Amino acid sequence: MKIAILPGDGIGPEIVAQAVKVLNVLGEPFELETAPVGGAGYAAHGHPLPEGTLALAKAADAVLFGAVGDYQYDNLERSLRPEQAILGLRKQLGLFANLRPAILYPELAGASTLKPEVVSGLDILIIRELTGDIYFGQPRGVRECPDGPFKGQREGYDTMRYAEGEIRRIAHVAFQAAQKRDKRLTSVDKANVLETFQFWKDIVIDVHKEYPDVALEHMYVDNAAMQLVRAPKKFDVIVTGNMFGDILSDAAAMLTGSIGMLPSASLDASNKGLYEPSHGSAPDIAGKGIANPLATILSAAMMLRFSLNKPEQADRIENAVKAVLAQGLRTADIYEAGTTKVGTEEMGNAVVKAL
Amino acid sequence: MKIAILPGDGIGPEIVAQAVKVLNVLGEPFELETAPVGGAGYAAHGHPLPEGTLALAKAADAVLFGAVGDYQYDNLERSLRPEQAILGLRKQLGLFANLRPAILYPELAGASTLKPEVVSGLDILIIRELTGDIYFGQPRGVRECPDGPFKGQREGYDTMRYAEGEIRRIAHVAFQAAQKRDKRLTSVDKANVLETFQFWKDIVIDVHKEYPDVALEHMYVDNAAMQLVRAPKKFDVIVTGNMFGDILSDAAAMLTGSIGMLPSASLDASNKGLYEPSHGSAPDIAGKGIANPLATILSAAMMLRFSLNKPEQADRIENAVKAVLAQGLRTADIYEAGTTKVGTEEMGNAVVKAL
Ligand SMILES: CC(C)[C@H](C(=O)O)[C@@H](O)C(=O)O
Ligand SMILES: CC(C)[C@H](C(=O)O)[C@@H](O)C(=O)O
Repeated sequence: MKIAILPGDGIGPEIVAQAVKVLNVLGEPFELETAPVGGAGYAAHGHPLPEGTLALAKAADAVLFGAVGDYQYDNLERSLRPEQAILGLRKQLGLFANLRPAILYPELAGASTLKPEVVSGLDILIIRELTGDIYFGQPRGVRECPDGPFKGQREGYDTMRYAEGEIRRIAHVAFQAAQKRDKRLTSVDKANVLETFQFWKDIVIDVHKEYPDVALEHMYVDNAAMQLVRAPKKFDVIVTGNMFGDILSDAAAMLTGSIGMLPSASLDASNKGLYEPSHGSAPDIAGKGIANPLATILSAAMMLRFSLNKPEQADRIENAVKAVLAQGLRTADIYEAGTTKVGTEEMGNAVVKAL
Repeated sequence: MKIAILPGDGIGPEIVAQAVKVLNVLGEPFELETAPVGGAGYAAHGHPLPEGTLALAKAADAVLFGAVGDYQYDNLERSLRPEQAILGLRKQLGLFANLRPAILYPELAGASTLKPEVVSGLDILIIRELTGDIYFGQPRGVRECPDGPFKGQREGYDTMRYAEGEIRRIAHVAFQAAQKRDKRLTSVDKANVLETFQFWKDIVIDVHKEYPDVALEHMYVDNAAMQLVRAPKKFDVIVTGNMFGDILSDAAAMLTGSIGMLPSASLDASNKGLYEPSHGSAPDIAGKGIANPLATILSAAMMLRFSLNKPEQADRIENAVKAVLAQGLRTADIYEAGTTKVGTEEMGNAVVKAL
């Protein structure tokens, strides 16, 4: 089984190194191959997603991704900026289903800015469609405004689009995920304003007929943003489009106060996937050896479960992470008085030991 | 000075009645005229925004709006549903600047789901563009998908658009609002993905040249959603588009835990405006006399300040609201042990008395 390792920029290389260490001690015949991506891709080959990196990702059974972005790439033209690598990989690999668990480990309840009773035990799963919507919809650009009171001025424009098949396949992923959990699905839309999301809602209702055991509710995106703050534990699985999912999944991650703990998976139609921590490249702390590697290690666990068909190994890693938390080890981002502060490498070593 | 009173549905009539009582004791020669809107408009005249109501709103110097929406209108076709009245009023009256303060009154810090130290003293102002973006952009609809892997299937689509002049005018409102506060403006965009918002960012940077005393920062919408949860007090004024503003302003309101306290203003180019509470029509508690009228009363205060040029009367109302809170009076939504629970009408009477 071949795994493409794309460390990226900022803290990416440091945290991915710990996940690789963990993968290497599992005793599985994985073949790991590393390639540059993001700013590192641009520095090495003049493009954030170099051809060789894309070819490797396509050939591999799964991709372990660190994070991309660093100050020195901020002023590149948009098509060359690091985050284009993420968008390119999603589109080129057909990774349409983004799974983002927002889980609050009991030991870390204090890290949240929300009151403990509101978030302790939080365990929700946000499923975000990842290859459609306004992210990729054509036409888009800057043009002369063709009508209305601003006719003749310059205007920026983009197109939000969802085709029936695109909505159906993400709805199936969401209903099936709900079946494995508490059997409750919230479909988030803006059907009161957007044609795209009235259509989304209609299709989700239709797919629901195949999953009568799942309770489906519909919620407007503005209300969903409120309910995530008010009573996040009421959710089980949330499914939504690419744009709303971008916003809500980050808000949900931040509710836990420990975004350094949260993995994510982006899957194609045959469960090949890209796995990455939910946090970013944090260039301000890069190279200091203090970044939290656990989200990346837990992303490797998701990879074992969803793409490499090794659920027992995934369980082993997740239990090892719980064990190091129980031992009181904390990186700086989740440190609290009374616990033991450790660096990136010590944390990785502790997980290896707990395995 | 003529004020259009549009109570709407659900708790709308009850809370607006209290605000009207407050307006009537100010000793000003206001002419108030009431008309049905939302579900009530549909029930009376077959349309959520009846012609007579629109004409009244156009003729008036300001509009005081309650809330719209009730169960019995949920299954109407979209163009007849209550919320179309809001969208219609915004568009027809050119109300492009939505001002949504998110303020946490010290007495109500306990109502928030966030820890007191994270939110106490919160005082941010979200300025949402209200007549452009994907809310109104043409073309939109359901069609046969013209290209790509889903070609030939049905698809829903909408168009996000912002013309230069549209961005300039909301940017001016935002910079000027920041000048009257802590002189810090955060422009929220998604310039890394959307052409519309790269254009938005470019124009905001250009308008900034006229306001060198205001510190401008740019933030991606997903990060803004996170920072609102992580450290909301770091913001002063936020400006963003219609869609992102819908989501972020509701999230910010919910941070306070007391959305029943939050007013809003929607202004046109000459400071004519529509004023409404940030909360909805709450049909589940309609008619019970327990709704919180303070957001509507505070909306009337905003109306006096922005549209009717009576800032001292606005101050009087705001001080009266602070006084009733200091007296320990609370409607059910903000009630805590040790305070005195009152109904809608008692709360309105208490404000009148405090005046
Ligand atoms: C970097 C950016 C293009 C990306 C997105 O908006 O999808 C990121 O925010 C994410 O959520 O993975
Ligand atoms: C009712 C709806 C159309 C409206 C909006 O999305 O603007 C509401 O959510 C609001 O924020 O006033």
